[in-house]
Amino acid sequence: MAGPTTDGRVLRGEETRRAVLRRAVAVASVEGLDALSIGRLATDLGLSKSGVFAGFGSKEELQLATVRAARRIFADAVVAPVADTPPGLGRARALCESWLAYSRARVFPGGCFFYEVTAEFDARPGAVRDALAECAVEWHGVLADALARARDAGALRPGTDLDDLAFALVAVLETANAQAVLHEDDTPYQRAGRLLLRLLRAEATDPADPALSPGPAQGPA
Amino acid sequence: MAGPTTDGRVLRGEETRRAVLRRAVAVASVEGLDALSIGRLATDLGLSKSGVFAGFGSKEELQLATVRAARRIFADAVVAPVADTPPGLGRARALCESWLAYSRARVFPGGCFFYEVTAEFDARPGAVRDALAECAVEWHGVLADALARARDAGALRPGTDLDDLAFALVAVLETANAQAVLHEDDTPYQRAGRLLLRLLRAEATDPADPALSPGPAQGPA
Repeated sequence: MAGPTTDGRVLRGEETRRAVLRRAVAVASVEGLDALSIGRLATDLGLSKSGVFAGFGSKEELQLATVRAARRIFADAVVAPVADTPPGLGRARALCESWLAYSRARVFPGGCFFYEVTAEFDARPGAVRDALAECAVEWHGVLADALARARDAGALRPGTDLDDLAFALVAVLETANAQAVLHEDDTPYQRAGRLLLRLLRAEATDPADPALSPGPAQGPA
Repeated sequence: MAGPTTDGRVLRGEETRRAVLRRAVAVASVEGLDALSIGRLATDLGLSKSGVFAGFGSKEELQLATVRAARRIFADAVVAPVADTPPGLGRARALCESWLAYSRARVFPGGCFFYEVTAEFDARPGAVRDALAECAVEWHGVLADALARARDAGALRPGTDLDDLAFALVAVLETANAQAVLHEDDTPYQRAGRLLLRLLRAEATDPADPALSPGPAQGPA
């Protein structure tokens, strides 16, 4: 919104916006994007309604800004920590482990933000659904990319269907999140860890590939 | 609520209740259980608020009755059609195909009811979450049971982890529903069909088992 400035008013506006979005992603991860209202967020944060309204203007704008904020938090929590892992099978596995750690740590208090709000908006055409569909495609692409590099490097079989495999990995991750949150239970994460390795090994040229050894994900692959 | 009776008032009360629940499961599958209100349902159906209120009493009662109604619809759509399939690998596969058909047919207009409202309530302890957790455990059990019969009959390997396998199947089904609804695309169902077979074959004692042949699920197994 505003570039670097020494204008205190603008800085406070930016700070307000950030505080509102921090609160908004947390609320939405538990109760959904429909639970966000400018009045409620103002009350929660002890701010004036007009101050919050100034930063967003409409409920849909607030929802879209919340999705963008969650996307940045997700990228920082899941993708950024894997940046130094060399491309290939090791990175694909590290991305999955990073996702499980993100869900387990409740980076968003309700578990995966995108699971919660995608279920909420998937059957409701509009700008919010479009934004969520884009996030889903982007994450699928990050995973499929790592798998493509692994196949190019000969670590996955030439006939591997990368989109099917990425879909299966995402399915295991999201279901682990869903069941762990629903039942307040760690078991689904343990299942997911085993199943991810099994899915990757089934397509690996070398099932004993060190990138797929049990235990925490390893860098080199 | 009422036993068999010739009292017109009670019969109309039961009819009202059924009409309200039919509408409630449809609305909740698109917008969630929080979108249900006695006033809105009364308006949608052209009924008096007091008439709708009489059948439920509170928003939480209405939400719980909606979950129970959805559970019956799910059982009729997914489990009942498989009742004649002999227990074992064929039934496990038929249950999965039946689930995909249920999602694809939009038995609930928003796709799988339980995907929508479980994401909505999973991080909110209370009676609604408890009811949804029970439904999830019940469905997992139906699948795991069929897999157990298949293992007992020698169609799955003795070392097969039935809960891991049921989890993986549920993950593929739910993710197919989620992505098909989000992107208004049939591809996820096709992926799911392939992946289910691959998951079952990986644990089958005979990968060429006729219960796992491509094409529609088969009875005998």
